[in-house]
Amino acid sequence: MRMYDLIQKKRDGGELSEKEIRWFIEGYTKGEIPDYQVSALCMAIYFRGMTLEETTALTFAVRDSGERLDFSEIHGLRVDKHSTGGVGDKTSLVVAPIVASLGVKVAKMSGRGLGHTGGTIDKLEAIPGFRTDIPVDEFKDIVNETGIAIVGQNATLAPADKLLYALRDVTATVDSLPLIVSSIMGKKLAADDDCIVLDVKTGSGSFMKTLEKSRELAEWMVEIGKRAGKRVRALITDMGTPLGYAIGNSLEVVEAIHTLQGKGPADLTELCLELSAHILALAEKGTYEECLQMAKNAISTGAGLQTFAKMVEGQGGNPAWILQPENFPVAKYSRTVVAKESGYIHSVDAEGYGVASLLLGAGRNTKEDVIDPTAGIYLKAKTGDYVRAGDPIAVLYSGKESGFAAAEERLLASTHISAEKPEAIPLVLAVVE
Amino acid sequence: MRMYDLIQKKRDGGELSEKEIRWFIEGYTKGEIPDYQVSALCMAIYFRGMTLEETTALTFAVRDSGERLDFSEIHGLRVDKHSTGGVGDKTSLVVAPIVASLGVKVAKMSGRGLGHTGGTIDKLEAIPGFRTDIPVDEFKDIVNETGIAIVGQNATLAPADKLLYALRDVTATVDSLPLIVSSIMGKKLAADDDCIVLDVKTGSGSFMKTLEKSRELAEWMVEIGKRAGKRVRALITDMGTPLGYAIGNSLEVVEAIHTLQGKGPADLTELCLELSAHILALAEKGTYEECLQMAKNAISTGAGLQTFAKMVEGQGGNPAWILQPENFPVAKYSRTVVAKESGYIHSVDAEGYGVASLLLGAGRNTKEDVIDPTAGIYLKAKTGDYVRAGDPIAVLYSGKESGFAAAEERLLASTHISAEKPEAIPLVLAVVE
Repeated sequence: MRMYDLIQKKRDGGELSEKEIRWFIEGYTKGEIPDYQVSALCMAIYFRGMTLEETTALTFAVRDSGERLDFSEIHGLRVDKHSTGGVGDKTSLVVAPIVASLGVKVAKMSGRGLGHTGGTIDKLEAIPGFRTDIPVDEFKDIVNETGIAIVGQNATLAPADKLLYALRDVTATVDSLPLIVSSIMGKKLAADDDCIVLDVKTGSGSFMKTLEKSRELAEWMVEIGKRAGKRVRALITDMGTPLGYAIGNSLEVVEAIHTLQGKGPADLTELCLELSAHILALAEKGTYEECLQMAKNAISTGAGLQTFAKMVEGQGGNPAWILQPENFPVAKYSRTVVAKESGYIHSVDAEGYGVASLLLGAGRNTKEDVIDPTAGIYLKAKTGDYVRAGDPIAVLYSGKESGFAAAEERLLASTHISAEKPEAIPLVLAVVE
Repeated sequence: MRMYDLIQKKRDGGELSEKEIRWFIEGYTKGEIPDYQVSALCMAIYFRGMTLEETTALTFAVRDSGERLDFSEIHGLRVDKHSTGGVGDKTSLVVAPIVASLGVKVAKMSGRGLGHTGGTIDKLEAIPGFRTDIPVDEFKDIVNETGIAIVGQNATLAPADKLLYALRDVTATVDSLPLIVSSIMGKKLAADDDCIVLDVKTGSGSFMKTLEKSRELAEWMVEIGKRAGKRVRALITDMGTPLGYAIGNSLEVVEAIHTLQGKGPADLTELCLELSAHILALAEKGTYEECLQMAKNAISTGAGLQTFAKMVEGQGGNPAWILQPENFPVAKYSRTVVAKESGYIHSVDAEGYGVASLLLGAGRNTKEDVIDPTAGIYLKAKTGDYVRAGDPIAVLYSGKESGFAAAEERLLASTHISAEKPEAIPLVLAVVE
């Protein structure tokens, strides 16, 4: 087999065979196929697309490119939840404890943030002592003991995806449905969970800018997950505005705790309950309506919060911080951003908010950047709210003052104020199963 | 400027600015832009194309990527002739001496063959002692003295093209009009000739499989050449069948000599005369008809052959071999290939003939391969000829016997015999100026 022939075939609109796709992924992982041929193939895939068959083969080849985990020693049904990436998206911190408190096992591997989107692992590391780099055997023991653990992705998990993603990121080949599907599902399927609920973000600040494209992404991921023998469901949710009020690592952990205490923002609480109910329904804990009620109860009884504290303890953190979130330090510096004009916040560019948070120190531009856990943004007004000129719309937090000017500028440029009240957009736009 | 942005712009159908194209070519030549970004851009160009403006900018950037030659010390009008690559195409060996004998200066840089097409430099090196690696100053002196020199391409000439071509060759991005145009014309324009006649091959065995595509290629090259201040004309010629009867280095030199002696094959003679006439007309030696007559006279008087001998002497070879071509050694082994059935040779796959010749040792698969100057094919029948089963259609020549079986098989598979006499195709299909 020659890589040239694969590139040419795809360039001319042909369908690659499963054998060809496996050969390419194995060769690339071993370093036998050079980047310059792979980037040419990715660009050809960008233009020609891939069939569902090809995308399935690519996903499975990515899954099999490294170690496949075996969670069979974990007792009971194992569930996972994955978001395609959003701004202020702390749902995993709420949903995982809720469902674990209801008897399903959460054995979750998460990523770090890069660019304008945050990562669950970075958020959890805002809790002092919390370990995310835990060997697989210990990870399984923790899940068996406490019912829940969230750790960083194993370095040996789907190495082809790491190589491919790094290459796509610098060759303008990220925005390709089959490549996105195989990247997300290749990693997810290399872990050994039984049920997966996908939160597919749509709108500005997400991979997929239109509902139609997001639905296609959701449908393909669900189908390929099923072909791999998993129970999978996807929610398509609006990413036109950040979730909740907090953006930034410790700010988001505190907001997640408030949500588990029953006093979280309405949008965040609603999405967390729905995600939890879908996971529980997939795990056959009852009808969707019954599962939704169980999730609500996990908040009102405090069972979810207790499970979060148990998880933190199990992974080396201090559970007292979860029960008394006022322990989390506040950033050394803060600055209030006020509206320049009166009107409704008609729309916001969530990606711009994410970039503003990054500029304050809450994220990383390169893998080497160190995160300031206290940095971020707390919104004072959200889409649909009426503000007068001079009213605060957000408070910026940072350990250094140098980022404020650029962050404020970016935040204001990403906030569109208008005399017209915007139409409310539902949070969950569709469920694909 | 970021390479990522250029890739994305082209991917989305945008037009790159002259500044962007120059920045990319300069950065790539200096090794500052990695291959994997360039191959992604080439694939995006494959799909999106380039405007004439972009292609002009790319051509000029390639031209300027290394040393630009200065031929002003050569007295008189300087002419060049370039073929897009064919099988059995020894026209340069005939045309260059004819026009030089008529008072225009031929200061020509040629390439080596790779794959199924031959290279003028390889052919000339079949003449013992003939030097093709001549420093530019000496080259100019030879042209001033003898009126003609054909040397290998200077290593510092258009280095961006060398890098780009090597990359395109392994990433299935060769077949792109703007990339072909900028590759050919970038090199041609880095040399300092006044008049350029392009021989654009069409049909099987050439870059451009259809007349329409070949015409577009010819039109763009002529237009860009004019924009660079050159006098340019292009002939679109049929490459459905090899030119003449000889394929292989010393076989082709001998056939070129026979043509200059007035006893060459009809098709080769005709094309050489037309190419010569177009060059002379560009150099304002007379009307096209007058120039054609001058070229014919250069053959009948032997002036062209004398000039060829002078060029060989000027470049260190023995001119006696040109005047007595029976000096050229014949290959150690030969094998006659006979027709398996009776009928007309309806069509041949010229590329297949080129590959058969390569298998005998006449070409190189990789840059490191050493050429056997005696290897090749002498056709005994050409398209349109009637053969009986058992009649010889070609004689294979090689210094080793091991290539005969594969070469014979390839040659037979590339020869299509039919009861029907094929329609004659004119050799020159169009002239673009």
